[in-house]
Amino acid sequence: MAAPRFDILGIGNAIVDQLAEVPESFLSRHDMRKGAMQLCDFETVRRLGESLPDPQETSGGSAANTCAVAASLGSRVAFLGKVAGDRLGARFREDITNAGVHFPDDSPAAGEPVSHPISHPISHPTGRCVVAVTPDGHRTLNTFLGAATGLAPEDIDPELIADSGVVYLEGYLFDPPAAQAAFHRAAQLAREAGRKVALSLSDPFCVDRHRAGFRAFAAGQVDLLFANEAEICSLYEEESFEAAAERARRDVAIAALTRSEAGSVVLAGERTIPIPAWPTRVVDTTGAGDAYAAGFLHAHMAGHDLELCGKLGSLAASEVIAHLGARPGAGLSARAAFLLR
Amino acid sequence: MAAPRFDILGIGNAIVDQLAEVPESFLSRHDMRKGAMQLCDFETVRRLGESLPDPQETSGGSAANTCAVAASLGSRVAFLGKVAGDRLGARFREDITNAGVHFPDDSPAAGEPVSHPISHPISHPTGRCVVAVTPDGHRTLNTFLGAATGLAPEDIDPELIADSGVVYLEGYLFDPPAAQAAFHRAAQLAREAGRKVALSLSDPFCVDRHRAGFRAFAAGQVDLLFANEAEICSLYEEESFEAAAERARRDVAIAALTRSEAGSVVLAGERTIPIPAWPTRVVDTTGAGDAYAAGFLHAHMAGHDLELCGKLGSLAASEVIAHLGARPGAGLSARAAFLLR
Repeated sequence: MAAPRFDILGIGNAIVDQLAEVPESFLSRHDMRKGAMQLCDFETVRRLGESLPDPQETSGGSAANTCAVAASLGSRVAFLGKVAGDRLGARFREDITNAGVHFPDDSPAAGEPVSHPISHPISHPTGRCVVAVTPDGHRTLNTFLGAATGLAPEDIDPELIADSGVVYLEGYLFDPPAAQAAFHRAAQLAREAGRKVALSLSDPFCVDRHRAGFRAFAAGQVDLLFANEAEICSLYEEESFEAAAERARRDVAIAALTRSEAGSVVLAGERTIPIPAWPTRVVDTTGAGDAYAAGFLHAHMAGHDLELCGKLGSLAASEVIAHLGARPGAGLSARAAFLLR
Repeated sequence: MAAPRFDILGIGNAIVDQLAEVPESFLSRHDMRKGAMQLCDFETVRRLGESLPDPQETSGGSAANTCAVAASLGSRVAFLGKVAGDRLGARFREDITNAGVHFPDDSPAAGEPVSHPISHPISHPTGRCVVAVTPDGHRTLNTFLGAATGLAPEDIDPELIADSGVVYLEGYLFDPPAAQAAFHRAAQLAREAGRKVALSLSDPFCVDRHRAGFRAFAAGQVDLLFANEAEICSLYEEESFEAAAERARRDVAIAALTRSEAGSVVLAGERTIPIPAWPTRVVDTTGAGDAYAAGFLHAHMAGHDLELCGKLGSLAASEVIAHLGARPGAGLSARAAFLLR
């Protein structure tokens, strides 16, 4: 089998984060509940976005964040996700490309009509997430998924899949039926090409909505499963983390389960490898799980042992939680070089 | 050969740091030049110490700092240095013991007459260093070496030397002739017992005062040499770091040469191993070299390869420069566990 062109291909929601610091009054004026993530319609998110003072716009979304962190570590990474032909679509493309991630150019360019050349017509503007940061450091999120939900089986390019060492799937995309079908197609193509399939559960409520589907997919298609404590307990409807972890051990070859400041546990066959958290001052936990998966996958695809994969996951997570935003600082790759020898 | 009781035995100046934040006017009032380290007499340092607002008192001194950091990493460490039977002598003993470092109890207890039971009478109070930190973050130091300079060959316990994997010597102690003789005795005993000898050059001016002595000692007695760029260039009177490093390569089995934000280089026989700096925000570089030596020695005595030794040195140094003071935070040993597997 030829060496793949990419180490990691992420598939997930293509979202532009619009982040700004706001006074407390911003939340009450716009009827936002502090600390919550709320899905909302286009008009709401557009109005909120226009009210933000001097917003910082970056490409976001869970799997896209993982891709950006893995690229910063030196992995060769591609990302598949849907944007529209609007200004924010161009912003997403520019930002993720600048992060060193290959973003296939079959999305419409800015200014083109918002229809997709190879899949069904996209009727939504580019997805976005308004992130309002209050002076107390809390983040309140309003998300409009928009074009991101338009991912369909036709968007899964068999050549790209065959050319990627692992396909990494974001659980959030289980919600739209066409995207779920795209997941199944991507996983099947990857297995046929002898590549690996990784899944991140993303969110306990999303797991709750699609429990049977996730369980069947994990047991039948997934080599590497990423989940936090709430997600893995939701998947197996177990109250204890340990019981849920044992269920995961039976379903997938490798499960990497994160537990915030308690670190993580990697389960593989009969092996159980506890990984400590890298001690750091927590500023903003957004993106911690995404970065953990990036560190883990980067080390795993380079052939390192599972303990080192978990440790690099911890290190990457510690980098993004030490500052605002889901992307690491410039020092991560230099620090990673201390672990990877 | 039996396994030694201690991994590392440090020998150096026993100093109590008296640190406080002061207004700018403190410097001008006491005729201190900002950022400088000045040796001074007892009356001056006593007066300055009494003028400090609410000083923080901790055990200090270069080799003692190395010992404390190595102990925090889990090394079994002893320290040999002289204090008097005064309040600060008791403070030093208490603090270094709390840091997990064995401090042999042959120094006089607080309240006893200031004479030493096994060596020549000590006529000086315990050494101390007044550290005045101005609002701009600069540190201005006034040091009285006092009892620390009383180290003599009689203080070198052959059993303790034979029971320590490596004897680590602080170059500052080359100044007092009796202490220099103690160094030679310690190195000779260590070699006779099949133990290693490490030397830190401490200071380019100290090297300048004893160049011939340091060169002969390094070439004849030293297995591991620690120095920064200014020190190694001073030792060999070379203008370029590279030329000085080549001279060190011929003199000692292992030279670990630090270059601030450019990292360090480890030379061993024909091998040259560049080690990057661990990226961090610099708050106070005091103790960076001491911590580097601690990380290096901790890994070296545990049998790790030289690249990992240098990396642990970098990591330890990054910890102490990220905050005020020469001792690491609580997270260092947890972080070190990521590198040491």
